[in-house]
Amino acid sequence: MSSATLSSNFLQTGCQWKDGVKNLERNAGKVFVKCSVNSKTHKAEKEVRLGVLGASGYTGSEIVRLLANHPHFGITLMTADRKAGQSIASVFPHLISQNLPRMVAIKDADFSDVDAVFCCLPHGTTQEIIKGLPRSLKIVDLSADFRLQDISEYEEWYGQAHRARDLQKEAVYGLTEILREEIKSARLVANPGCYPTSIQLPLVPLFKANLIQSKSIIIDSKSGVSGAGRGAKEANLYTEIAEGIYSYGITRHRHVPEIEQGLSSAANSKVTVSFTPHLMPMSRGMQSTIYVEMAPGVEIKDLRQQLRLSYEDEEFVVLLEEGVVPRTHNTRGSNYCFINVFPDRIPGRAIIISVIDNLVKGASGQALQNLNVMMGFPESTGLLYQPLFP
Amino acid sequence: MSSATLSSNFLQTGCQWKDGVKNLERNAGKVFVKCSVNSKTHKAEKEVRLGVLGASGYTGSEIVRLLANHPHFGITLMTADRKAGQSIASVFPHLISQNLPRMVAIKDADFSDVDAVFCCLPHGTTQEIIKGLPRSLKIVDLSADFRLQDISEYEEWYGQAHRARDLQKEAVYGLTEILREEIKSARLVANPGCYPTSIQLPLVPLFKANLIQSKSIIIDSKSGVSGAGRGAKEANLYTEIAEGIYSYGITRHRHVPEIEQGLSSAANSKVTVSFTPHLMPMSRGMQSTIYVEMAPGVEIKDLRQQLRLSYEDEEFVVLLEEGVVPRTHNTRGSNYCFINVFPDRIPGRAIIISVIDNLVKGASGQALQNLNVMMGFPESTGLLYQPLFP
Amino acid sequence: MSSATLSSNFLQTGCQWKDGVKNLERNAGKVFVKCSVNSKTHKAEKEVRLGVLGASGYTGSEIVRLLANHPHFGITLMTADRKAGQSIASVFPHLISQNLPRMVAIKDADFSDVDAVFCCLPHGTTQEIIKGLPRSLKIVDLSADFRLQDISEYEEWYGQAHRARDLQKEAVYGLTEILREEIKSARLVANPGCYPTSIQLPLVPLFKANLIQSKSIIIDSKSGVSGAGRGAKEANLYTEIAEGIYSYGITRHRHVPEIEQGLSSAANSKVTVSFTPHLMPMSRGMQSTIYVEMAPGVEIKDLRQQLRLSYEDEEFVVLLEEGVVPRTHNTRGSNYCFINVFPDRIPGRAIIISVIDNLVKGASGQALQNLNVMMGFPESTGLLYQPLFP
Amino acid sequence: MSSATLSSNFLQTGCQWKDGVKNLERNAGKVFVKCSVNSKTHKAEKEVRLGVLGASGYTGSEIVRLLANHPHFGITLMTADRKAGQSIASVFPHLISQNLPRMVAIKDADFSDVDAVFCCLPHGTTQEIIKGLPRSLKIVDLSADFRLQDISEYEEWYGQAHRARDLQKEAVYGLTEILREEIKSARLVANPGCYPTSIQLPLVPLFKANLIQSKSIIIDSKSGVSGAGRGAKEANLYTEIAEGIYSYGITRHRHVPEIEQGLSSAANSKVTVSFTPHLMPMSRGMQSTIYVEMAPGVEIKDLRQQLRLSYEDEEFVVLLEEGVVPRTHNTRGSNYCFINVFPDRIPGRAIIISVIDNLVKGASGQALQNLNVMMGFPESTGLLYQPLFP
Repeated sequence: MSSATLSSNFLQTGCQWKDGVKNLERNAGKVFVKCSVNSKTHKAEKEVRLGVLGASGYTGSEIVRLLANHPHFGITLMTADRKAGQSIASVFPHLISQNLPRMVAIKDADFSDVDAVFCCLPHGTTQEIIKGLPRSLKIVDLSADFRLQDISEYEEWYGQAHRARDLQKEAVYGLTEILREEIKSARLVANPGCYPTSIQLPLVPLFKANLIQSKSIIIDSKSGVSGAGRGAKEANLYTEIAEGIYSYGITRHRHVPEIEQGLSSAANSKVTVSFTPHLMPMSRGMQSTIYVEMAPGVEIKDLRQQLRLSYEDEEFVVLLEEGVVPRTHNTRGSNYCFINVFPDRIPGRAIIISVIDNLVKGASGQALQNLNVMMGFPESTGLLYQPLFP
Repeated sequence: MSSATLSSNFLQTGCQWKDGVKNLERNAGKVFVKCSVNSKTHKAEKEVRLGVLGASGYTGSEIVRLLANHPHFGITLMTADRKAGQSIASVFPHLISQNLPRMVAIKDADFSDVDAVFCCLPHGTTQEIIKGLPRSLKIVDLSADFRLQDISEYEEWYGQAHRARDLQKEAVYGLTEILREEIKSARLVANPGCYPTSIQLPLVPLFKANLIQSKSIIIDSKSGVSGAGRGAKEANLYTEIAEGIYSYGITRHRHVPEIEQGLSSAANSKVTVSFTPHLMPMSRGMQSTIYVEMAPGVEIKDLRQQLRLSYEDEEFVVLLEEGVVPRTHNTRGSNYCFINVFPDRIPGRAIIISVIDNLVKGASGQALQNLNVMMGFPESTGLLYQPLFP
Repeated sequence: MSSATLSSNFLQTGCQWKDGVKNLERNAGKVFVKCSVNSKTHKAEKEVRLGVLGASGYTGSEIVRLLANHPHFGITLMTADRKAGQSIASVFPHLISQNLPRMVAIKDADFSDVDAVFCCLPHGTTQEIIKGLPRSLKIVDLSADFRLQDISEYEEWYGQAHRARDLQKEAVYGLTEILREEIKSARLVANPGCYPTSIQLPLVPLFKANLIQSKSIIIDSKSGVSGAGRGAKEANLYTEIAEGIYSYGITRHRHVPEIEQGLSSAANSKVTVSFTPHLMPMSRGMQSTIYVEMAPGVEIKDLRQQLRLSYEDEEFVVLLEEGVVPRTHNTRGSNYCFINVFPDRIPGRAIIISVIDNLVKGASGQALQNLNVMMGFPESTGLLYQPLFP
Repeated sequence: MSSATLSSNFLQTGCQWKDGVKNLERNAGKVFVKCSVNSKTHKAEKEVRLGVLGASGYTGSEIVRLLANHPHFGITLMTADRKAGQSIASVFPHLISQNLPRMVAIKDADFSDVDAVFCCLPHGTTQEIIKGLPRSLKIVDLSADFRLQDISEYEEWYGQAHRARDLQKEAVYGLTEILREEIKSARLVANPGCYPTSIQLPLVPLFKANLIQSKSIIIDSKSGVSGAGRGAKEANLYTEIAEGIYSYGITRHRHVPEIEQGLSSAANSKVTVSFTPHLMPMSRGMQSTIYVEMAPGVEIKDLRQQLRLSYEDEEFVVLLEEGVVPRTHNTRGSNYCFINVFPDRIPGRAIIISVIDNLVKGASGQALQNLNVMMGFPESTGLLYQPLFP
């Protein structure tokens, strides 16, 4: 079956157009009027059968939301240990219209009907579970477990031994625009963290082109609260978050080694960054305001020129016009990353701003982008959701 | 060209897959690295060519957002008098990836390449403008100008003479699930207001089936702020809205005659409602909490049974399971309306709750649903966006 | 010591004005500049020594905030079982400038230096603890444990036997403006719930004057999230609450019997209300929109006239001018209740709106108002905080 | 009359305690019940008579809120050109309980009963108006007009000639903790901007003690929306601000010269800063995250030690305990500034965080603090409001 046919099926899903008729039925002596007989969605079988492991968290539900309009990917397995036996609608009522399998415990999962999985499990557990999956599966792992190539870094920052060292070797870091070629042939992709995505997209090309200096990279990031997940914590209550902002994890945030790994690789020398994340009252969204020192003789227009070249053919990374400020509002719900560069008052320095939706380009959207690449589909397939504003 | 082919083109838009290559270019002696050569979206020509009149407001931009993934509808004309000459991205940066015509003043609009229009203009002006449009155009009007069948009602509530009385006669009220048959053959559809949509969807079937009484219908509605539009008003500043709620337009809101028109028609007798809208800190979303008295002998389960029958084959109107509370959060960005019915402590009374996204099912989404119907496409075409949560 | 002297001490607390001098100190060879030598607050001993039981929740911290400027009340005991041994600043950093005793476990509390207590404990536990307190203490209990005069109502709604039935008999319901005389001589005051406060203040005088009918009282209330306390619950996460609204506890909210008790007493007949609370994105604030049927021959102006008479000499309950809509924004952080009455479209009905800050007039502020009355001080002492807007 | 007596009068204002009695009145044949006869607040005459010029903006209303509990300052004049003739309650309903003079146009203002004024007018206009005020008045000016000692700086950044150059010479910059001595004898105080306050309080002592380097001061500030005032602007609508963040005025914000003036003076050499403000969804609050390079040999503990010495006797500036992160939530509605210092990952660098409420310590609170100093009252008089949390 051609993908053209499939996609057309999809778009008309739920729409076997029948003439509306008014029916009358009787029930216990009362008259009920029936307005219409349109019939509800029945998902066409899709070519690629997916499992979502850890479907009861925000990244899991976001995968489901994004896949709802994907012409080739269909979900045939969902796991959630504590919600085993439940429907997705009982956990995420906004997905009630999706016709999906009930969630099962991971130990009861049957992978015989699965071609690929999104793994949305907590770090630590993830290693063991992925180690146990059939080798035939393509895997995009949204946890931090396979992001750090240097196992000792993992063990230092996560305070525990790594239990799948061999798998680490084959894992490809899934920053799509930067490592697309490697991702194409990967079996296991380690999907980047949200902060690292927002930071590496602008900085990697600039480092590669030797346009910025590796000293004194200062990154002030602001994140929405969904990044903290759906776990019940006092710190993330509405009353504790609304109408205020605060820094957290100063110098100790676990995304630091991932950021430094990517930048060091691009710079071809060890980069140490100053990274201060802030938690603020928005459910989704992330801005990184990055203060850099340019290489001698380099000017703002050179940074912009490099970013333009790097990203002009990309669907999801957009260098804005000169002077236009990227706003998190303009990425909400979408896979876009908007970037711009501004001169600093301090001569020789530049201010780089990048914004993403932390749950999409910073997590589930990039995961889907990666799976598209891994499965040989156009990378934006099913991902062209426009931002929701206001 | 078949719609299957078209839609498949669409879905792969922006994805003429090329191998990523690394190019080197030189500019003023500096080396720039080019990451990839994916080429950007170029919209396939679509079968139906649309105009969006009044594209610089929230309902206009929402039309654009929704259409971005529609396989058959393409935008060829956009008007915005005060923003004439500007690109959509200069007014709504979140739509930057859309390749759209520049906005023109309405007086300069050329309708020769247009098959249908969404009219997102303020009431009053709308009448004149629609009167001047070519008769060949299909029109969905999002203003209030053609919603009231009784011209004198319009003149009473809007305080001005109606300037397109003849058009009023042919206008069909666009509450899709209720008036689908009439909409199919309409040329001019008056798209319902947001409050009336949230209120009529649950009440019309109950009135038609004589299950509720027409006296003492008390409606307490809560709306997000986007309903007030993008005009700069002190009352809608962040500082005036955040962290609070208030009633407004008590007994005098202009949606009252529209609500009463629909309910009176369904009840076959004059219905006068108590309607109190509230403005609260959310950009999108609307809940109507409706307190009704049941007809003698009628029970809660009868109301639920009627709503189940009325809507079980509908894509966008969903009666939730018994006891499940509809939440505006679960409709954000989508065309769904969720409804449920609860017993009241006062014997013989029921509490009905319905929620929508005021900009989608309450405005631009329903408008697109109507145009799908008018043009003979399946009604959910391009509208199956899942709600954005969190 | 006269209270005049005391209060003047307080107001100038922290302000023993000394000339600022620049001091130089040396530390490990580095020079430190000292800007000033103003000395910090040292609380004057206050006449009345208070205990705050359950100081680690929002009502407890709000008591502390309000008392910070009270000329006669000082805190000498704070309990918090799970935070025993900690300072208030470690639990509520916003109170860092307050010089307060460390929190102790309730079992270790020494009441010998305490004249009165605010009891901010969960219902159920409260009964036992209050039963064990010295009879010499004045008590304002913010829990629900002593609000219902009919023990069987308590047991029905709270699903457990009442363990302090004798105390219930002496408890006075603390709706200050309505029961001031009884509160004056009370030892144990049951501080009203937030919803019941916002509802009874407007309705009790109207029922007493026979201006409204007891049938068909429909109350649609909207509350901020702090009413749910500081416990870590998924439902109250920022991501679950922001940008949306939903009804909860429909017909089953535990404030129902308290509301009906007060209204039935005022009406001199059993009143059954329709009560639907909603949770919305604001930390503080509560609006009750109340739909009533007037007694035959009664008009809107009669309701307003009665409320004016009832409250014109009150500090904290304000009937707004005709047509002015009460807004929760205008009560934030203050002990005020704003009320107004509007005509309904349905003849013979009225819409009454009242707004409070649920943590102040709806909890800790009214508690302090009550203790002022119980101790013989002017009732607004230390409570004249103006609302915080924006 | 001693201030002790005055303050005691104030605190018991509105509380001439009378026994509540139940009165019956008759009106048109209906019975009205009167609950009580407490009489309402009548402000005692205060020693110092104040004018608030520009009372209809947020800084003006905040002055009124703060003064409500001041024992010595009473308002006898309020101006607001566009609201002339109106009561404060018609413009700011939250201040309805305050008994204040009606607002008049500035040209009609009578200063014969005024001892001091708060000038809350826009920059530009302010110069002319202050030039025309009687020399006998003490003035705290909240605009930017007299903050820059170098007139040419003013003219460069504000794009207009300064029209009160002589006054500029006598103006004292009102950063209270730093310039208290000068403020004591000032007639005209230029109240600092919000960003400059949050930045200079931590940095000035560190520069004075030569603990940090003047190069590479990078300041990433986040502000609540009230800083933008109450003017109706599309950019500040709820829908444009909620659930997102963005940088603005990058390198061009008008607070830059004020910040650099203060830091250069403290450092005794020209300091150029990188300053990037961000607008985020909170009505009040401001955080400055400041990235600095320490002087050779200086360590984090030295910075902390200096700030401790500088501020240990201050009421309103608090260095938090090691490791405790300042949060804007904990300053809301109060005059406090919380500061802390953290090590950076980049050796030799430190991260300094300071938080304030932009409308209080960043505007009206510091203005009142200054007037207290100018009039010889203890500086915290009437200002000890504790932060409102949650």
